[in-house]
Amino acid sequence: MRRIGDLPPGRADVDGAAGSVIQLLVERGETLAAVESLTGGLLAASVVGVPGASRAFRGGVVVYATDLKASLGGVPQDLLAARGPVDPDVAAALAAGGRARCAADWCVATTGVAGPQEQDGKPVGLVFVAVDGPGGAEVRRLQLAGDRQTIRTGAVTEALRLLTERLRGADPERRPG
Amino acid sequence: MRRIGDLPPGRADVDGAAGSVIQLLVERGETLAAVESLTGGLLAASVVGVPGASRAFRGGVVVYATDLKASLGGVPQDLLAARGPVDPDVAAALAAGGRARCAADWCVATTGVAGPQEQDGKPVGLVFVAVDGPGGAEVRRLQLAGDRQTIRTGAVTEALRLLTERLRGADPERRPG
Repeated sequence: MRRIGDLPPGRADVDGAAGSVIQLLVERGETLAAVESLTGGLLAASVVGVPGASRAFRGGVVVYATDLKASLGGVPQDLLAARGPVDPDVAAALAAGGRARCAADWCVATTGVAGPQEQDGKPVGLVFVAVDGPGGAEVRRLQLAGDRQTIRTGAVTEALRLLTERLRGADPERRPG
Repeated sequence: MRRIGDLPPGRADVDGAAGSVIQLLVERGETLAAVESLTGGLLAASVVGVPGASRAFRGGVVVYATDLKASLGGVPQDLLAARGPVDPDVAAALAAGGRARCAADWCVATTGVAGPQEQDGKPVGLVFVAVDGPGGAEVRRLQLAGDRQTIRTGAVTEALRLLTERLRGADPERRPG
């Protein structure tokens, strides 16, 4: 018997999470942006793959090089210099920066170490995903296992899950399903 | 016998094209950015998937909503208003804008109609890919067939091919091989 819980998130999990996010955003009439470091465009591409995504998804930035996290992502230079790119406050600043620059209601951000080598003393698989929206910012720390592609897919799935929770929680009229 | 030429480009074609691009850039000591509309981050994600991509890839922007092509992509407002988003000069302006904003030696840009409906009178599958680099800008017009995912994958593959040609042609010491 295949134990689903043991499997790393794959394409179907990402597509399912992206579909839920777009459905919730369209219902609410709200928009989304994405700021991606280690996921490098994978989150945005997953969202754009959902039919009707243009009704909610505005765009985003891919801040793969560290300096772009300041110049394009809006992270304060002193914060980035003090903490390095893999940091919870940097993740929150990226989400806030992307939300402002893309004029979106919500923004998700990802930063972390896909490997194979550790980065600035941070271990492979350490990832921070952040969501900024009408109720403020929220950051989740992840320690993901697997190769580079598995860690990236996991980061996208978890970022979309955090957003889904926020979208559900932010609606006082929505009853648990 | 499988006739490769009849098949639409798939995951393997994209990965192969991305691998060639990173190899050529690393050899030349040059860097890359990406500005994506219809491909929505798929090109950047493909490049980031290549081992060693961080030596050449800086980042980029996803300008899915039309207004972001001006505010984030650097397309002049009057050009965008006059021509709409699916236009060769808009593609060239996106590549130039991304190259400047990401401080990269090269930038690739994509804009087009993934479908299922036509957009602003432009047919499904009409795509412009652009490359801006040391030798100036170049735009290629494509008419791609297939569903949304096939059109996006084809756009990524053709954009990377155009860049590969430019990188090979731009090196006078490189012999055909």
